[in-house]
Amino acid sequence: MPNQPTGDLMRAEIAEQPAVLAAAVARRADLADVAARITARAPRFALFAARGSSDHAALYAKYLTEVLLELPAGLASPSTTTLYGARPDLTDVLYVTVSQSGGSPDLVEATRAARDRGALTVAVTNTPDSALVEAAELAVDIGAGPELAVAATKSYTATLLALYLLVDTVRGGTGAAVADLGELAERTMTKSADAVDEAVARLRFVDRMVTTGRGYSSATAAEAALKLAETSYLSARAYSGADLLHGPVAAVDAKTAVLALASAGHGGAAMREVLAVVERSGADIVAVGSAAGSVPATLRIEVPPTAEEVAPILEVLPVQRLVLGLSLARGGDPDQPRGLRKITRTR
Amino acid sequence: MPNQPTGDLMRAEIAEQPAVLAAAVARRADLADVAARITARAPRFALFAARGSSDHAALYAKYLTEVLLELPAGLASPSTTTLYGARPDLTDVLYVTVSQSGGSPDLVEATRAARDRGALTVAVTNTPDSALVEAAELAVDIGAGPELAVAATKSYTATLLALYLLVDTVRGGTGAAVADLGELAERTMTKSADAVDEAVARLRFVDRMVTTGRGYSSATAAEAALKLAETSYLSARAYSGADLLHGPVAAVDAKTAVLALASAGHGGAAMREVLAVVERSGADIVAVGSAAGSVPATLRIEVPPTAEEVAPILEVLPVQRLVLGLSLARGGDPDQPRGLRKITRTR
Repeated sequence: MPNQPTGDLMRAEIAEQPAVLAAAVARRADLADVAARITARAPRFALFAARGSSDHAALYAKYLTEVLLELPAGLASPSTTTLYGARPDLTDVLYVTVSQSGGSPDLVEATRAARDRGALTVAVTNTPDSALVEAAELAVDIGAGPELAVAATKSYTATLLALYLLVDTVRGGTGAAVADLGELAERTMTKSADAVDEAVARLRFVDRMVTTGRGYSSATAAEAALKLAETSYLSARAYSGADLLHGPVAAVDAKTAVLALASAGHGGAAMREVLAVVERSGADIVAVGSAAGSVPATLRIEVPPTAEEVAPILEVLPVQRLVLGLSLARGGDPDQPRGLRKITRTR
Repeated sequence: MPNQPTGDLMRAEIAEQPAVLAAAVARRADLADVAARITARAPRFALFAARGSSDHAALYAKYLTEVLLELPAGLASPSTTTLYGARPDLTDVLYVTVSQSGGSPDLVEATRAARDRGALTVAVTNTPDSALVEAAELAVDIGAGPELAVAATKSYTATLLALYLLVDTVRGGTGAAVADLGELAERTMTKSADAVDEAVARLRFVDRMVTTGRGYSSATAAEAALKLAETSYLSARAYSGADLLHGPVAAVDAKTAVLALASAGHGGAAMREVLAVVERSGADIVAVGSAAGSVPATLRIEVPPTAEEVAPILEVLPVQRLVLGLSLARGGDPDQPRGLRKITRTR
């Protein structure tokens, strides 16, 4: 008889995160040089290129860039370069490529092309000797250490933190909002454990799931949906709270579980009205975040309060544990989901 | 006994599209003034703001802008302005807001803020007397006429065409690729009718559905998933073909239907390798587009060939008929999906 999947790899990597995050905060000064070179070039626009989980980290960075740096920003479509050969003028553009492995050929090619076209290119990776780091002018090492489970966990939060610290350093910040992040991450794990177990039991047989968040937490909603799809074979969909009300709420009913991110601040406040509409559909709402207590929900997973722009780094921790628990409860193997490899070669 | 839903409104609006598109092509010269003012301002970066179906039209326009105008482009997050009060410097930015109704308060506010911050703002709407048109410096009327069904159909294709014609005029094009679009749309309807009926019968009982496309057709995949969610209460998910291989393909199995867009050109060619992987999962693949015949699929819905950048306007036509047919077959009311209004007021 084959061994039962245990999820040990993913569980261990989830548990490493408080230490990984604390170490990254301690190395904050290492970003000073990259930040200074970005400041010196005074970019006027930012583009982020990424795929999969890294694309959700890029979405988070786009919000950080627009709100904290007040620079217009967008997510790049690498295929305009790699499939269609577009050669835009990228003078004054900061082009940040985010990839755990740094090995995705299309991202390497798009980064090289962006550099050729005048962009200031920055590679944010977990792999300092990767082709992506070689292609880009500047590099940030997220320092998460080797990640063995196919589902990204510690590399995801380490990427969020690296992007936050980079933006914060560029704006002349002191990292105050993340000074205690390691400890907060530890408290998040402890504080949320029972509620996560309850959520696993409650969602074990679900067929239809929607994830939603607004503002910074849109990234967490997207990451939750992807992880559920990868490890529990659930066709969960992510919507920003605003988009959800624009139509897809029609597909939410009493047979739907809604995983809602609600952290204290503007995004969480806006979720209150979204969830008031969702509640009328009869859906089972699991709310995660520091404002989980103040939104309509049937189950709440509380997270310690932080500055709103830092919340995505913490609120995803119980989500990862929920994803791991659900995968095992539903008979999956979260360490080695079928059909998945760690590096995907698209062009 | 209540009347059975008939889908008559949505069916009639789908059928109007050849005439709506032909009329818009004939009015092409009306865009000359807006295009000239864009050219005169020589924008260096484009941002598109939209929600729902219009967001998919914006994604299409982002590809057009990057490939045909060779300008870097991104999708704006209105909430960075409306929730977080970000005030980025938007000098040299072309800010295009896309909204059928022109009445969404958050888009109006974000457009007004963008204009205050130096952007050249353009409203693309179906409602020339809307608040959005008043807020923006320039306006493009898509001219689709009143749309009564809640699910957008003719306003979606008219928006795609208006954005194409605008980009084409800015680059000094002559509209050659869309000269016969009305006739091609008519042929698409006729040519695809039987295959659409077959697809409706085949997908009637499906629970799990994924939509996918690459390049320009990513927009069609996203639009298909949204329409299925709105009218058939299916939690269909859309993935770019590249992202699908990066993880979510794990959730694709023999119980999954994959609606794949494959139009002749670079995007369709790249879909061949994506679908070769998907095929091994045992999924039921319905391929739609002018290259449907050259990708792995169990059912093919053919569309007449066009320039690749124009294909999204045609390939969505059989998708709309599929969505309508599925909604009726599954007992829904495509004209009046539960929980939906035509204008959604988010902020």
